[in-house]
Amino acid sequence: MDETVLLTGAKGAVGTAIREGLAGEYDWRYLFHNPPPFDPDHPYLVGGVEEPEVAAEACEGVGAVVHLAGDPRRDAPWDAVLESNVHGTQVLYEAAVEAGVETFVFASSNHAVGHYESERTPEVYREDDRFVLDGTELPRPGNAYGVSKATGELIGRYYHDEYGISVCNIRIGNLSRDSPPAAYERGQAMWLSYRDCAHIHDCALRADYDYEIVYGISDNDRTFYSLERARDVLGYEPADNSAEYTFEGEPKE
Amino acid sequence: MDETVLLTGAKGAVGTAIREGLAGEYDWRYLFHNPPPFDPDHPYLVGGVEEPEVAAEACEGVGAVVHLAGDPRRDAPWDAVLESNVHGTQVLYEAAVEAGVETFVFASSNHAVGHYESERTPEVYREDDRFVLDGTELPRPGNAYGVSKATGELIGRYYHDEYGISVCNIRIGNLSRDSPPAAYERGQAMWLSYRDCAHIHDCALRADYDYEIVYGISDNDRTFYSLERARDVLGYEPADNSAEYTFEGEPKE
Repeated sequence: MDETVLLTGAKGAVGTAIREGLAGEYDWRYLFHNPPPFDPDHPYLVGGVEEPEVAAEACEGVGAVVHLAGDPRRDAPWDAVLESNVHGTQVLYEAAVEAGVETFVFASSNHAVGHYESERTPEVYREDDRFVLDGTELPRPGNAYGVSKATGELIGRYYHDEYGISVCNIRIGNLSRDSPPAAYERGQAMWLSYRDCAHIHDCALRADYDYEIVYGISDNDRTFYSLERARDVLGYEPADNSAEYTFEGEPKE
Repeated sequence: MDETVLLTGAKGAVGTAIREGLAGEYDWRYLFHNPPPFDPDHPYLVGGVEEPEVAAEACEGVGAVVHLAGDPRRDAPWDAVLESNVHGTQVLYEAAVEAGVETFVFASSNHAVGHYESERTPEVYREDDRFVLDGTELPRPGNAYGVSKATGELIGRYYHDEYGISVCNIRIGNLSRDSPPAAYERGQAMWLSYRDCAHIHDCALRADYDYEIVYGISDNDRTFYSLERARDVLGYEPADNSAEYTFEGEPKE
């Protein structure tokens, strides 16, 4: 695909998985808050998505947006996520539809539905538990960060309905590079490997859809997030599975 | 009931319906942006809910909150609803749980689901159409105002799950005092009379529930909003029906 794709938040963990895994697949344009410590020759812009002029420049001539930028702290205070995650996402959507962007992939989060877990732990992390979330449920955020991510999904719903832009919200699980987090049942149940992270974003950039909410995790035996929509609509075929690792995070023999 | 109930946005249409219809039912405390033009002797505070000190003072000693304040314009710009409706609601919830408020009734809106209509008009307003929304559906806001109201519902979800406060979101339809709006199918389908508006808020203040999303309309023959949750959980028994009026807004013989 030779189209230019804007990647916001390229420096974070999700951004790193995408940059590394899909380096040659798209004509990436990065947006950073500060000049990046890597790839100094790669095209990039500096600024915040909540600045309309920055967002407009970032979206110019772009076919798709992968929007990861925002305050990533699970314990971020309300004021911070309101500005960076909620307001920033709205400003970027506005710039995207103004520029004629066709596809908007939004990094949502498992924290958008965190309170479904709180009354079901630790059973919900185990293989014999039958509880499952599939993206059709109403959000139940577990913290202010989760409220901001669920609101980002809502903002996308509005821009899709109003302007026709294709929107895919990926509720990202627990991202780690080579192996699932050790001795952390929750993290294993929602593990997303780096290569699966890159792959699901690749799928979201290539597939045809209107408005989707999918879970972004690997093909874990123990999980309470359905991959049905991601498989059916995006063609997602995850390669990893936390069950292939010991509880200590080592690959099984 | 002799408990003090905080009423924000008491000056607006919904607030007027509640003040008039439930004048003697609760020990009301009003919160206004400016000194009110009526009831000068009634207890009130002046300020905005988005000011933490104002919100804290307003919630002190209060058993329940009816939160109507916010930018009411259907075409309000994003920045205005972000500050007044989204941020203001979060600040008030924070003050409410801090003060130990037990029940929080939030004035949500039909605009939180406005885009379900846009692809179904005008059929959806007619009696032979079978489409219905019941509050379990994911929001599809029809404008920035609708985004802000759906976000207010989300904020309430978080505060309920995290702190146990009872939350009822009432997606208010088309409020008018004595008769449904004339020659306006949409307004007739979602008509809420003043007395039914007062009654549903009374129900929401008296009933036992955890977290609810209900539609606030009269018992209209032609509608696409289910009253099932409002009837079952709140005990709502609407008295009015837009079908009892002619299309010109006159009562039928």
